[in-house]
Amino acid sequence: MFEQILENVRQQEPLVHCITNYITTNDCANIVLACGASPTMAEAEQEAAEIAAMSSAVDINIGNLNTMTVAAMHRAIAAANRTGIPVILDPVGAGASRYRMDTLRDFFAAYRFAVVRGNISELLAVGGAASNTKGVDAGAADAVTEENLEERIAFFQQLSAKLGAVVSISGAIDIIASPERAYICRNGHPMMSRITGTGCMLSALTAAFCGANHDHILEAAAAAVVAMGVAGDIAYRKTQAAGGGTGSFRMHLMDAISLMDADTLNGGMNVEIR
Amino acid sequence: MFEQILENVRQQEPLVHCITNYITTNDCANIVLACGASPTMAEAEQEAAEIAAMSSAVDINIGNLNTMTVAAMHRAIAAANRTGIPVILDPVGAGASRYRMDTLRDFFAAYRFAVVRGNISELLAVGGAASNTKGVDAGAADAVTEENLEERIAFFQQLSAKLGAVVSISGAIDIIASPERAYICRNGHPMMSRITGTGCMLSALTAAFCGANHDHILEAAAAAVVAMGVAGDIAYRKTQAAGGGTGSFRMHLMDAISLMDADTLNGGMNVEIR
Amino acid sequence: MFEQILENVRQQEPLVHCITNYITTNDCANIVLACGASPTMAEAEQEAAEIAAMSSAVDINIGNLNTMTVAAMHRAIAAANRTGIPVILDPVGAGASRYRMDTLRDFFAAYRFAVVRGNISELLAVGGAASNTKGVDAGAADAVTEENLEERIAFFQQLSAKLGAVVSISGAIDIIASPERAYICRNGHPMMSRITGTGCMLSALTAAFCGANHDHILEAAAAAVVAMGVAGDIAYRKTQAAGGGTGSFRMHLMDAISLMDADTLNGGMNVEIR
Repeated sequence: MFEQILENVRQQEPLVHCITNYITTNDCANIVLACGASPTMAEAEQEAAEIAAMSSAVDINIGNLNTMTVAAMHRAIAAANRTGIPVILDPVGAGASRYRMDTLRDFFAAYRFAVVRGNISELLAVGGAASNTKGVDAGAADAVTEENLEERIAFFQQLSAKLGAVVSISGAIDIIASPERAYICRNGHPMMSRITGTGCMLSALTAAFCGANHDHILEAAAAAVVAMGVAGDIAYRKTQAAGGGTGSFRMHLMDAISLMDADTLNGGMNVEIR
Repeated sequence: MFEQILENVRQQEPLVHCITNYITTNDCANIVLACGASPTMAEAEQEAAEIAAMSSAVDINIGNLNTMTVAAMHRAIAAANRTGIPVILDPVGAGASRYRMDTLRDFFAAYRFAVVRGNISELLAVGGAASNTKGVDAGAADAVTEENLEERIAFFQQLSAKLGAVVSISGAIDIIASPERAYICRNGHPMMSRITGTGCMLSALTAAFCGANHDHILEAAAAAVVAMGVAGDIAYRKTQAAGGGTGSFRMHLMDAISLMDADTLNGGMNVEIR
Repeated sequence: MFEQILENVRQQEPLVHCITNYITTNDCANIVLACGASPTMAEAEQEAAEIAAMSSAVDINIGNLNTMTVAAMHRAIAAANRTGIPVILDPVGAGASRYRMDTLRDFFAAYRFAVVRGNISELLAVGGAASNTKGVDAGAADAVTEENLEERIAFFQQLSAKLGAVVSISGAIDIIASPERAYICRNGHPMMSRITGTGCMLSALTAAFCGANHDHILEAAAAAVVAMGVAGDIAYRKTQAAGGGTGSFRMHLMDAISLMDADTLNGGMNVEIR
């Protein structure tokens, strides 16, 4: 399944419209290119709807909001909803400020999202549960563990039903859930949280995968998480072998996504379906 | 000729004022430094004219416009025109939105540019021809080929005369044209389009080269294209040799620009003059 | 001393709120993570105070101002001052435009800073002395040398007293001064000025180190400079050994910060106390 998702990205080279944050936007553009898709980052209110309407997916990331980008996001999401283009929402730092929560409330009240993807603290905040976000990083107390996995899956399947969106949570154990089904992924390495932007990149990758697989959003979202996790595993091994640090890891991670193929994906993945 | 252009950059370390897009601005600053020049990215309306007037070249890139940056661009270009500082314009995504086309029309109506540099789809759109831009990437149908090369050269020499600017088009075959002369360059590798920012970087590099060679704008623009193409060739070979992907390629590309010397440039270039 | 400063960062993982410039913000976030701290880059006026108040340190960098970010900076600094959180100010390009000088004057009139960190030209401009800034780079004529070192130390110890802030100046010879004491550091390599953002990264690192060492601001500021200098030495050796350029150097620099430990720091540092 997943290799077909990836193959569709390579074949269709979907245009992915990202309105994201300037901290990690270069990484987002590069990972969209690395997986075989084509990024465009337009975020002026004047052109956001026009660019969204010609794209195959829209990636909305609230990591660094301001009045201008929020206005552009509204235009882009509305245009995408009108034309049936999947919108991926990354609620970066949800719970960290009233401004972010207010912006999210406005979004959920007005629009439909194909996937809501973030770390556990962000998704707990989106779901109205107690959350311990630390800036834009997940709080340790919130982590998905083997002990609370069942409970977390149930919570996020309910949230998925409520939002009408696939919910994708990243961490040591990843959960990608629709109301009917959940993928559990145990790939990846803690070093991924020692470089900035792995979450943002995964959202952009999710948008690229959904852009070429409109009819299989859950599987596309899961495939993106799995590809990122397998790439993290590979990057960690290469970094360790050469005695490198986080700078090397970042390069190897991008390399691994650009070199990902069906064999590597299938051979490396550690996925369970419930 | 080209090695003298490069040598002048290294000797004069020109200050290059870039008002660009936040997706690739870090890459632009790094390539300006890598070639031996000095970047400054000021883009507040309040200081854009002042900073432009103390610079040796101005690089204007419309990859991510908003009301504030457009206002700053007007100030910077006007100041540069008043003091005779060359302005390089990169019409990123021309043809992709009305906002970009309107902004460009305002620019061409009011100001003079030394070089207009972009991909083939963008330059066709600037020239008023049919264009198939895909977001910020060139459409495959627009490509310069050995078959349409004569026709493309003629078109862009006419456009150069009309704009009063050197026209620099990047792709598998690059064309750098004034009304009287055209350089054709066949360096570079398709992997350059699999990382973000190679176009933006080339525009910044063009600004740096023009900044130290005010009296030889055509040659400086061509030298920048050739240096980037040769660097792309080197980076591809190094990446392949090590089994790397696009992350490695990006690093090797910057390395190659920073290590470029006369012998490498002359030994690697594949250039024709018409 | 310095190894304890570093150990505290690793143990406490302080949250560092950066309002910086979009050219180097990715590098700043990555170096904060590399040293063991946690970055958050929120810069909307609507949330800047709220985020600052939950952080352990605030990093303010004026490398790319606009009306919106200046408003957010005021909110964040005021909130940090109210709650006693150390604020690190990087006066990027001070002296290059009236807008930057006006912004700095407003800041110094209204707020207290724990550390003011920049290159020599910027700090001379802050101190009201003649300065030869070249865009955002230090002018060669301003350099700290063995000949003018005594005079420079005296000047900056007076400036430190006047500002009520530790003053940290980077260059071939670094000075980190309080009114009573000065650290002189001779680590680092000229290649550090051939990539963008080493100054911005050092300010972010200084914020991270201060965030975990509120009671030892002078030592934390000095430790950050020393760690960066030692990392620069290591990165240069690795780059040279592999025949790399500035792209490689940038990766090795980040690696070296993420791999820094007490032995490397103590073994590599070249520091004098006066």
